[in-house]
Amino acid sequence: MINEKLSKIWYGGDYNPEQWPDEVMEDDIRMLKLADIDVATVNVFSWARIQPNEDTYNFEWLDRIMDRLYKDNIHITLATSTGAHPAWMAKKYPDVTRVDYDGRKRKFGGRHNSCPNSPAYRKYSAILADKIAERYKNHPGLVVWHISNEYGGYCYCDNCAEQFRVWLQARYGSIEQLNKAWYTGFWGHTFYEWDEIVPPNALSEEWGGNRTNFQSISLDYRRFQSDSLLDCYRLEYDAIRKHSSDVQITTNLMGTYPELDYFKWAKHMDVVSWDNYPSIDTPVSFTAMTHSLMRGLKSGQPFMLMEQTPSQQNWQAYNALKRPGVMRLWSYQAVAHGADTVMFFQLRRSIGACEKYHGAVIEHVGHEHTRVFRECAELGHELQQLGDTLLDSRNDAKAAIVFDWENRWAVELSSGPSIALKYVDEVHKYYDALFELNIQTDMISVEESLEKYELVIAPVMYMVKPGFAEKVEQFVARGGTFITTFFSGIVNENDLVTIGGYPGELRKVLGIWAEEIDALLPGQTNQIVVNQARGELGGSYSCSILCDLIHSEGAEVIAQYGSDFYQGMPALTVNKFGEGEAWYVASSPDKALLQSLLSTICKEKGIDPLLAAPTGVEVTRRVKDGKSFTFVLNHNAEAALVQLQDEPSKDLLTGQLVSGEYSLAAKGVLIIEQ
Amino acid sequence: MINEKLSKIWYGGDYNPEQWPDEVMEDDIRMLKLADIDVATVNVFSWARIQPNEDTYNFEWLDRIMDRLYKDNIHITLATSTGAHPAWMAKKYPDVTRVDYDGRKRKFGGRHNSCPNSPAYRKYSAILADKIAERYKNHPGLVVWHISNEYGGYCYCDNCAEQFRVWLQARYGSIEQLNKAWYTGFWGHTFYEWDEIVPPNALSEEWGGNRTNFQSISLDYRRFQSDSLLDCYRLEYDAIRKHSSDVQITTNLMGTYPELDYFKWAKHMDVVSWDNYPSIDTPVSFTAMTHSLMRGLKSGQPFMLMEQTPSQQNWQAYNALKRPGVMRLWSYQAVAHGADTVMFFQLRRSIGACEKYHGAVIEHVGHEHTRVFRECAELGHELQQLGDTLLDSRNDAKAAIVFDWENRWAVELSSGPSIALKYVDEVHKYYDALFELNIQTDMISVEESLEKYELVIAPVMYMVKPGFAEKVEQFVARGGTFITTFFSGIVNENDLVTIGGYPGELRKVLGIWAEEIDALLPGQTNQIVVNQARGELGGSYSCSILCDLIHSEGAEVIAQYGSDFYQGMPALTVNKFGEGEAWYVASSPDKALLQSLLSTICKEKGIDPLLAAPTGVEVTRRVKDGKSFTFVLNHNAEAALVQLQDEPSKDLLTGQLVSGEYSLAAKGVLIIEQ
Amino acid sequence: MINEKLSKIWYGGDYNPEQWPDEVMEDDIRMLKLADIDVATVNVFSWARIQPNEDTYNFEWLDRIMDRLYKDNIHITLATSTGAHPAWMAKKYPDVTRVDYDGRKRKFGGRHNSCPNSPAYRKYSAILADKIAERYKNHPGLVVWHISNEYGGYCYCDNCAEQFRVWLQARYGSIEQLNKAWYTGFWGHTFYEWDEIVPPNALSEEWGGNRTNFQSISLDYRRFQSDSLLDCYRLEYDAIRKHSSDVQITTNLMGTYPELDYFKWAKHMDVVSWDNYPSIDTPVSFTAMTHSLMRGLKSGQPFMLMEQTPSQQNWQAYNALKRPGVMRLWSYQAVAHGADTVMFFQLRRSIGACEKYHGAVIEHVGHEHTRVFRECAELGHELQQLGDTLLDSRNDAKAAIVFDWENRWAVELSSGPSIALKYVDEVHKYYDALFELNIQTDMISVEESLEKYELVIAPVMYMVKPGFAEKVEQFVARGGTFITTFFSGIVNENDLVTIGGYPGELRKVLGIWAEEIDALLPGQTNQIVVNQARGELGGSYSCSILCDLIHSEGAEVIAQYGSDFYQGMPALTVNKFGEGEAWYVASSPDKALLQSLLSTICKEKGIDPLLAAPTGVEVTRRVKDGKSFTFVLNHNAEAALVQLQDEPSKDLLTGQLVSGEYSLAAKGVLIIEQ
Repeated sequence: MINEKLSKIWYGGDYNPEQWPDEVMEDDIRMLKLADIDVATVNVFSWARIQPNEDTYNFEWLDRIMDRLYKDNIHITLATSTGAHPAWMAKKYPDVTRVDYDGRKRKFGGRHNSCPNSPAYRKYSAILADKIAERYKNHPGLVVWHISNEYGGYCYCDNCAEQFRVWLQARYGSIEQLNKAWYTGFWGHTFYEWDEIVPPNALSEEWGGNRTNFQSISLDYRRFQSDSLLDCYRLEYDAIRKHSSDVQITTNLMGTYPELDYFKWAKHMDVVSWDNYPSIDTPVSFTAMTHSLMRGLKSGQPFMLMEQTPSQQNWQAYNALKRPGVMRLWSYQAVAHGADTVMFFQLRRSIGACEKYHGAVIEHVGHEHTRVFRECAELGHELQQLGDTLLDSRNDAKAAIVFDWENRWAVELSSGPSIALKYVDEVHKYYDALFELNIQTDMISVEESLEKYELVIAPVMYMVKPGFAEKVEQFVARGGTFITTFFSGIVNENDLVTIGGYPGELRKVLGIWAEEIDALLPGQTNQIVVNQARGELGGSYSCSILCDLIHSEGAEVIAQYGSDFYQGMPALTVNKFGEGEAWYVASSPDKALLQSLLSTICKEKGIDPLLAAPTGVEVTRRVKDGKSFTFVLNHNAEAALVQLQDEPSKDLLTGQLVSGEYSLAAKGVLIIEQ
Repeated sequence: MINEKLSKIWYGGDYNPEQWPDEVMEDDIRMLKLADIDVATVNVFSWARIQPNEDTYNFEWLDRIMDRLYKDNIHITLATSTGAHPAWMAKKYPDVTRVDYDGRKRKFGGRHNSCPNSPAYRKYSAILADKIAERYKNHPGLVVWHISNEYGGYCYCDNCAEQFRVWLQARYGSIEQLNKAWYTGFWGHTFYEWDEIVPPNALSEEWGGNRTNFQSISLDYRRFQSDSLLDCYRLEYDAIRKHSSDVQITTNLMGTYPELDYFKWAKHMDVVSWDNYPSIDTPVSFTAMTHSLMRGLKSGQPFMLMEQTPSQQNWQAYNALKRPGVMRLWSYQAVAHGADTVMFFQLRRSIGACEKYHGAVIEHVGHEHTRVFRECAELGHELQQLGDTLLDSRNDAKAAIVFDWENRWAVELSSGPSIALKYVDEVHKYYDALFELNIQTDMISVEESLEKYELVIAPVMYMVKPGFAEKVEQFVARGGTFITTFFSGIVNENDLVTIGGYPGELRKVLGIWAEEIDALLPGQTNQIVVNQARGELGGSYSCSILCDLIHSEGAEVIAQYGSDFYQGMPALTVNKFGEGEAWYVASSPDKALLQSLLSTICKEKGIDPLLAAPTGVEVTRRVKDGKSFTFVLNHNAEAALVQLQDEPSKDLLTGQLVSGEYSLAAKGVLIIEQ
Repeated sequence: MINEKLSKIWYGGDYNPEQWPDEVMEDDIRMLKLADIDVATVNVFSWARIQPNEDTYNFEWLDRIMDRLYKDNIHITLATSTGAHPAWMAKKYPDVTRVDYDGRKRKFGGRHNSCPNSPAYRKYSAILADKIAERYKNHPGLVVWHISNEYGGYCYCDNCAEQFRVWLQARYGSIEQLNKAWYTGFWGHTFYEWDEIVPPNALSEEWGGNRTNFQSISLDYRRFQSDSLLDCYRLEYDAIRKHSSDVQITTNLMGTYPELDYFKWAKHMDVVSWDNYPSIDTPVSFTAMTHSLMRGLKSGQPFMLMEQTPSQQNWQAYNALKRPGVMRLWSYQAVAHGADTVMFFQLRRSIGACEKYHGAVIEHVGHEHTRVFRECAELGHELQQLGDTLLDSRNDAKAAIVFDWENRWAVELSSGPSIALKYVDEVHKYYDALFELNIQTDMISVEESLEKYELVIAPVMYMVKPGFAEKVEQFVARGGTFITTFFSGIVNENDLVTIGGYPGELRKVLGIWAEEIDALLPGQTNQIVVNQARGELGGSYSCSILCDLIHSEGAEVIAQYGSDFYQGMPALTVNKFGEGEAWYVASSPDKALLQSLLSTICKEKGIDPLLAAPTGVEVTRRVKDGKSFTFVLNHNAEAALVQLQDEPSKDLLTGQLVSGEYSLAAKGVLIIEQ
């Protein structure tokens, strides 16, 4: 449990009463209580207010806010305010502002503009965290520490350059090792002194954001910047821990955000929290995948939904309103995947600056008689009633998909074979197929133990790190089913090709050799034609993006290419290895193939759908103390018929017994306890 | 009258004989006389020629040109030449070149590259204006002063930063007031010292040109830069006025150019002049609207058409020729909307640099035997014949549309709800509907008196400045009809939301409350379904971009949304208020709705079309000394039948009497005196 | 012959054994010999390896590589390694890195990043060339010198600015002459001192890469940068020649690369070499045109195909594999157009950095049992067998197309009439029409003698340099047929318009006057309607982009425009001039018109197709010592029937006699000796 003080699904969100007169706060609290809101995140962007200059700190206003909230039993998520540095600091210590990708020195403005290797930023952010922790460690309303806000953004300044060299020395030991790892014989890049190395950006090795001349340099710079920002977080973490040992610490993450290796970060977080901002056309299964990924960061431990909007966003191109019922439905989707909190940005709308058209529980009109408030209040009542029933329960998946940020960087930095290849999209294709089958799926790191899974999928596992291939071999040998795809097993962790034939270290377990890789033009397709029918696999499917030209070296050929000069070459193979099987999908297939393939494998492995439900109805399960809680979420705009068990079970939300064929309302939610 | 010396519609344009040998000028003058050209704009870009270094000024060449022109009765629009600084000045005083949006220090090159807060630029441009005024104030050919050229472009240098702070101190008085107006509590932006403030550009608060983190800062920077450039103009204005009290002063504007608040500028101009460069696919009604706007800058006073091309432009992507007759037609369109001059860029084509493929009266071939020259000469003869008949006449409109540059900035800087919302396009939709109905329309500022109008439309009146709502209430109470739309009444002049419910200060007169604002995806539409038929309003119309979800608070609901979850909510309302009515159009409707709505209202108000004419035939009216001059302009490629009054009236151009059903030739023009 | 030591078509490519352990090189050589590879390009990017600091040079490793290769009769193309400077040099001498178009100082990284006017770069690259030449001048394996690599990229630094002024002084003599040539009276650009001039880039006169305010300045900067890079080449050339007088020197060019005036460069090269990288959708005729252009650089002298990929590239967006047979077919296409070498980038694939997914003879798998290797080896055997038969033979064309880099720059820098006009595309339209007719065509400079041609085409000859018009007049007067198009004869070499009527100096030979130029919108077309049928010319054709509105001044009007206000004006004319004819194509016509026109003219002139062959079958001819070698290349995916002569001739590749109707396999090649 995140904090025993609040043993229910937390309900609340970001709150900035310092932007308003006192009487507004009084009215706010009246309304928040109407909605059963019991937690508020405060102090997210108050650095300039707390510290008006280098020597002065003012906390009285924050004391008042925290005391006032807690007086009405609203608990506190207490942020450290270091998400945006003060203007005076940017003036006095120019090193706090970044140098951007184009080599431009930034000035004061916006957010996320602190250089992670700025001496001034590091010093004063740690001091601020220390002071806040010391002052509020025993505040009775405090339930979790929230460091900074949505860390992100890289810097390319001279301080970063210098620290990059230090980081490289620690990683490689000698310049000779670095030259080898970076393959600097190419294009005469040999380095003789550490200070010849400069950050890779638009002035040196890169262009267009993710195009680079030297993949290894660019890869290491991403690792270094992720680590640098993590160091900033850890400085604050340590400062807080010095004073407060019993309250958990988090920082709010951003799902599949590309710049930070969240698996590495999560090791230093007590609880994962994240901000969920799908746009109106984000696939529901993509949001589900992201929740699963956030749950996977700490091996299945429940997480916090730190932010979502009650109605609309402001920073999308077209900010549609959440339709009636959608806010509730998506809130339960988070819980269904492991969230133990439901929190909003924000409780009251600001009236100035760029987020004033971002939705809030209390809108600009300033009263509770709005659609948005009514929906928020109804959900508050439901969560109040649920109490601690679901807290700390776990999702019990038998299938897992491997996700790796370093592999993602390497794939996206690759020059060739195709700019159409997007790692996250390929991963999502597999998640989506299992989602449609209502097979619960974990998203795991390459370091995760595979022992509890029956099925492990590693799409586009381009970079194979030390030990991973062995782990897969052991998993398969023991009876597991492994699936990987084209463009896998190509490079090591320095992005150097494993010579001797693709897919390198995975070649043995897969029983195939990939001789060439063809890239298809946009709109161009090939076919995957099944020649060895198996389960639901049969007939012909479409594929695109890349086609590996493979040879079986023992694997059974299930399907072949249907056209072009490699017609007849294997396109889908399965290799028996010990007690298990290893599949290779040689191209990026259509949805139909993945559903047939995964349905076949799951049936063979006895991984059953949680429930029989039509398309658009999502099903997940959390378990705890011998009980299971099955979530049934109807994302459709119409009611849907779902087939429940014949013996009656309790719907947690209504307390009613339900069984057999059940009509679930449009946007409706069932939570069945068994 | 602009100048009694030339009491007819001026005809001429930009002329640069200094680029040519003397004998060419002699031949030019021969040809200009063939075309009845009587005015030449000279000295627009001659600073480097006049002032070859800091201490030397050469005017003899200009004396010769002016004298030679006037010898043949060609009058002079005399420019001050400060539209482009000399190369030696950029070298010696680097502060004259700008720092651009991306923070890059510019070097010498192009035009419009002088920093408006450059001490050197301000000093030497004022000196130059002073010297020119002193020297030529009594030149017999001089008819108007022309300061600089097409002012525009912002700067972000340190001088501008410093002056911005001075400007802010004058506006806000204290840093506390500034923090409040800018809402700096958001994202920890509190400023403690003025010098912590930096210009908002791609290095600080903005990106992509019009995207910003702090709307209020960006808004004030636009105000400041518009004022800074205006200060440059005023320095020259004052220098000229010191010597010359009887000749009017202007600078050439650019229609709906976004960067300058032309209503504020016009207060410091004796006569408005502007450069009209539609592209081949600019709607005719858009050009008409822009003429009306230029006329509205000084409350209806006639303006100068300072530049247009005789044939083609060079800087568009695809520079089509003006089809035969179009130059004449568009020239009369300017006059029809209030122009008292018809002038070209340029009289003779340059042979080098970027404008050599811009059309001219005298083309590269160098003789008068061209289509372009023939058309120019024919128009010259007509204008000669018109004499002073039309001079100083006024357009007598009963309908007005409110246009406001600060509101435009605020709308376009807004983060959310939709990037599809374009202020000028929304304004044009209403202008176009009246244009199609042949209802003459003024374009007015928010400061203009509404007394003489029956109908006032303020599309997307997002920012409501002090006093505007009261003025609208008085206007409606007295019997006027007011129309406004979705996304109106939201913020005050600092872009801070007026709390208590949209449309804020306009809520009372409109009798509605807008609870939410939905943004539609591109291609997505809703329907506006009339439930209370009125006049031509009936059936169902389409709408898009934004949909306000409104509640009537007394207003009559004329139409409702036709689909989505807000189906049945009001989409078009009208509120009786005193003797008048206030309409609210809750979404961006199709053309059919606006024509039905405005036709209905105009009929009800007795605002009659000037003439019954088919689509593509434009009709306007100027009046003077009890006479009216009705312009009928056929923009179609075919002849059109128009219904004139039965009693014969004189066509000013032919002297013929016309009446009844009249066939107006393709691209033809009638000016009927009554 | 390039070098008597290797009197056959060279076969090999780039090779970097220094990136690998010694045993790999041993295995490589075994495989290279299996493929009959006899030449390796080494030392292309080894500067940092050779010269680890300012004072040290290491060549032992290169000695070993060269000796080892030659031991197995693999000859050496020896590069100077100056294509990428070392990191230590960028640190110690920052002047070696460029300032880019946006004014940003570059840091170490990538390639092509040396400022061509850097004192340090010039000094150390010349020293390196000197040392390499001295050391290896007598190496028995050496067959050609290869300076730097793919020169390209402009710099805008202060050193370049200073040298630009020196270059300008040499070109213009006085600042007055420069002001005249640059037309600086426009926009007040008059320069009084040389140091007021700054390079034209995004900080001064230009934007978007090719948009400029001053065409003459931008044009001269392109000339200057091309010359500056050429100077770098020449410094190395001279350093080599000091030691080595008998081995030819080259640098590898890049076809239609825009930045360098290759005709000027070729004067300083002993043999032209180039790198051929078509993408999967490059028209075959475009590659053919580029080969012809490379051949034309030195008036028909055979050239080297220095680089092509055996299978796929890495830097395209979508890197498709070369289909089976295509590598062989395209290799022979190079030879068919005048190549005496067939060389690859690269012999063995690198395993790191950005080119690791670029194909190679030896792939990552590391053995010879791959499709790619097999195809390479088969071609190696064929070339071995061909011996010296084809060496030094010449293509005997009667038709020529004029191509001029300076004209190209001027066209692309022009502001107006249309951004749709692309010089290279217009040239390609004419080449393609002749290609489809199997008429062999030379690509020639404006300086080339026209004496040996029957037909000369100069598409979009916008800039007419001194003497060119006279040469055309003499060519036509003597009986030649000349064709030019719209937007020709407009400016002189300083981009100043020739006044007196377009097409200026070409007006007399063409017998027409172009009064106006209309620009069509995308998708808009006019028609070219034949009114004087001639040969295959008849009926109506489509045209677009620009339409010149012309008047005949003696020329016969063959076709007229079909619509718009210039319907009936001439669109295609031919003027008898002396013994010959001069055609004017007044717009950019469709493919059908060009085929009809060129087929008609070729028939009339007795320029016969080399062979009757269906679409997709390319035919060229090389001649030598009274023998002719006709290349027949089937680019189709199916076999094609070609009509050979009835008397049997030898197919060089098989030794078989062939005659009459012959079925050429898909992707097949015939070389017929006669």
